Amino acid sequence: MLIEISTRMKILIMGVDGYIGFPLALRLLNRGHQVYGIDNFITRKRVANVNSDSALPILSFKERNARIKKFFGRNVTFFYGDATNPEFMYRAIEKSRPDAIVHLAEQRSAPYSMIGLKEANETMVKNITSTMNLIYAVKDIVPKAHILKLGTMGEYGTPNIDIPEGFFEIEYHGRKDVLPFPKNASSWYHWTKVHDSNNLMFANRLWNLAITDVMQGVVYGTKTSEIADIGLYTRFDIDEVYGTALNRFTAEAILGMPMTVYGKGGQTRGFLSLNDSIQCLTLALEKPPDNGEYRVINQFDEKYSVGQLAEMVQNIFKREYGIVPDIAHVENPRVEREEHYYNPEHRKLEELGYRRTKNIEEEIIDAISDLSKFRERLNSLKETLMPRTFWRRSSYDYT
Amino acid sequence: MLIEISTRMKILIMGVDGYIGFPLALRLLNRGHQVYGIDNFITRKRVANVNSDSALPILSFKERNARIKKFFGRNVTFFYGDATNPEFMYRAIEKSRPDAIVHLAEQRSAPYSMIGLKEANETMVKNITSTMNLIYAVKDIVPKAHILKLGTMGEYGTPNIDIPEGFFEIEYHGRKDVLPFPKNASSWYHWTKVHDSNNLMFANRLWNLAITDVMQGVVYGTKTSEIADIGLYTRFDIDEVYGTALNRFTAEAILGMPMTVYGKGGQTRGFLSLNDSIQCLTLALEKPPDNGEYRVINQFDEKYSVGQLAEMVQNIFKREYGIVPDIAHVENPRVEREEHYYNPEHRKLEELGYRRTKNIEEEIIDAISDLSKFRERLNSLKETLMPRTFWRRSSYDYT
Repeated sequence: MLIEISTRMKILIMGVDGYIGFPLALRLLNRGHQVYGIDNFITRKRVANVNSDSALPILSFKERNARIKKFFGRNVTFFYGDATNPEFMYRAIEKSRPDAIVHLAEQRSAPYSMIGLKEANETMVKNITSTMNLIYAVKDIVPKAHILKLGTMGEYGTPNIDIPEGFFEIEYHGRKDVLPFPKNASSWYHWTKVHDSNNLMFANRLWNLAITDVMQGVVYGTKTSEIADIGLYTRFDIDEVYGTALNRFTAEAILGMPMTVYGKGGQTRGFLSLNDSIQCLTLALEKPPDNGEYRVINQFDEKYSVGQLAEMVQNIFKREYGIVPDIAHVENPRVEREEHYYNPEHRKLEELGYRRTKNIEEEIIDAISDLSKFRERLNSLKETLMPRTFWRRSSYDYT
Repeated sequence: MLIEISTRMKILIMGVDGYIGFPLALRLLNRGHQVYGIDNFITRKRVANVNSDSALPILSFKERNARIKKFFGRNVTFFYGDATNPEFMYRAIEKSRPDAIVHLAEQRSAPYSMIGLKEANETMVKNITSTMNLIYAVKDIVPKAHILKLGTMGEYGTPNIDIPEGFFEIEYHGRKDVLPFPKNASSWYHWTKVHDSNNLMFANRLWNLAITDVMQGVVYGTKTSEIADIGLYTRFDIDEVYGTALNRFTAEAILGMPMTVYGKGGQTRGFLSLNDSIQCLTLALEKPPDNGEYRVINQFDEKYSVGQLAEMVQNIFKREYGIVPDIAHVENPRVEREEHYYNPEHRKLEELGYRRTKNIEEEIIDAISDLSKFRERLNSLKETLMPRTFWRRSSYDYT
């Protein structure tokens, strides 16, 4: 199953136990790379704290890593620890001396960051310091290593003009300059990604670090080519705090519940499947930026409105199972435009060789098939689906 | 000495013991406002930690506040505490229930933030959480209060196009939108101010808070109209960590040392005197933004290159004292353009009624007069003037 690649690399994945980190480790091992990983399993704890769990069962990381060994002959060299601790980050970089580091180790839920001031500050502090620690550890120990940082398309917001990949030429009062595109995010979580991007851009200017800053769209689906066994499943979150639109709709339809579209449903975003997210990250790793380059990639496949996705799931259920799930427009807990222009550019990945592996309908059908095996588990998560975290009610109990 | 104003306000100054906070308290008391203040005196400690001190002697805050009472009949209602502690911020807002809050309580040295990872993370975490705590405390307790936040012109960097006041209309691919001007700062400290501005802009969108975000230029000088007595002096920092260009040049020239211009000296910035900084902040407080407005003000009087300022000090010394201080171009510790276009707009303050009170040469002469009274004190700070904090050497000792 090993695919020949020209250069075998040492790659450190921060957040290797996560939705994307775990299948990325499988892919990189499968392609012959040497994979190091760090995690402190805080996503498992945070999800449990909101009385939720992964909709697909996942093993402990130790068990997963043993399963990887069985399937791939090699596995992840794992360091347990917290990326917000600079001593730990320096030690992990020193022990692995990687050619590339993928930073997926941030608090990644917009609703979590909007619960209240405590969670907002936690998201700010942890996300920013983990990236700062990484910048310094790379600069001090492996200054030629490639930092691949996961940001989000949500950093840009929904401007009324096209969204370039990071930078664009502006003309103002008759003069021109190439400047970063102005960001305008819609949750504290999304803003931490903007702050990280700004800090990375400056780190590149200070020390010529080679950085890819990935503005990723919303990822959906359960499968990658390497997930060949239940023991290799990646986590799959559907609750209102950790789940995202399409994944939640799929689960709701299976449960016979109405699909919960927030507000009008005209919110348009870039989407891509888990398998193609892993394809993109692997491409960016195997085709790194030039020395001293800060490269921004808009990483998504196609854009859809939330309403369109709900209709797509509806049509699939009708066609495949003769069932027509309801669509419920619930009060939008977020602060966002519900109808807007949206046209982000995304050419760089195609230039690197990106080709869609499966269309969105096939991916949804696969996800339905995987999730349907765990109907009782899904059922136990029913109470977690409806929105409870309302952006404007975010507060602090100081009494 | 009391000037009649139409509305007497309750104003809370965060960082009331600082270079700007203290003379702002005097001005606001003098204009009949009720002034509350918080501080944890960390600037005094941080300056001592780099073996430096204020070049002008300052009393303890308790003694200063007693002196204020003597001169103005009333003084500052003071709460000792740390703005990064949410409980403290909520209590301070609840006890004062202010009409306006001026946030000057951030780590304010660019070089300090560039010493190493520890100082970089400290600056990120403290500056961002203090602003987040303020946002939530205002929103939960006094949602109509005006937040006046001190940012910096350094948030914009030195783009090759004009710099608007916060927002501008962009045309791109034939479509238009009004978007925030892209920021591009040059130290971790300056980036924290960008992060704060972004967080404040979002807080305004969430809760319609009335916010003035002040992009302030470099402030110089020792005097305001209310500093009528040695006991009312404000701190004046000249060392390489806490001092700024013009203040340092003045001290160096008095000491008979060469004025240390970093690099070519073509770095151009907006400058304003301490007295006019206090004038601007007072104007912004007495003419607050509309309910629900996020107002960005570029707060400076005139732009100069660092080299021009050194020449100006040279000319004043030649004319007034018959001495010609040397100008030394030392290795630039910073990462910045040394020759560049610079044209920031600054109309909003004039529209609010801003008029320059004294020209820059008169201010420099006043500063020379004040500093010359403390020649021995200045002399003891000689060793702190030369740059030692080099941006690109910022690191972390993890062994």
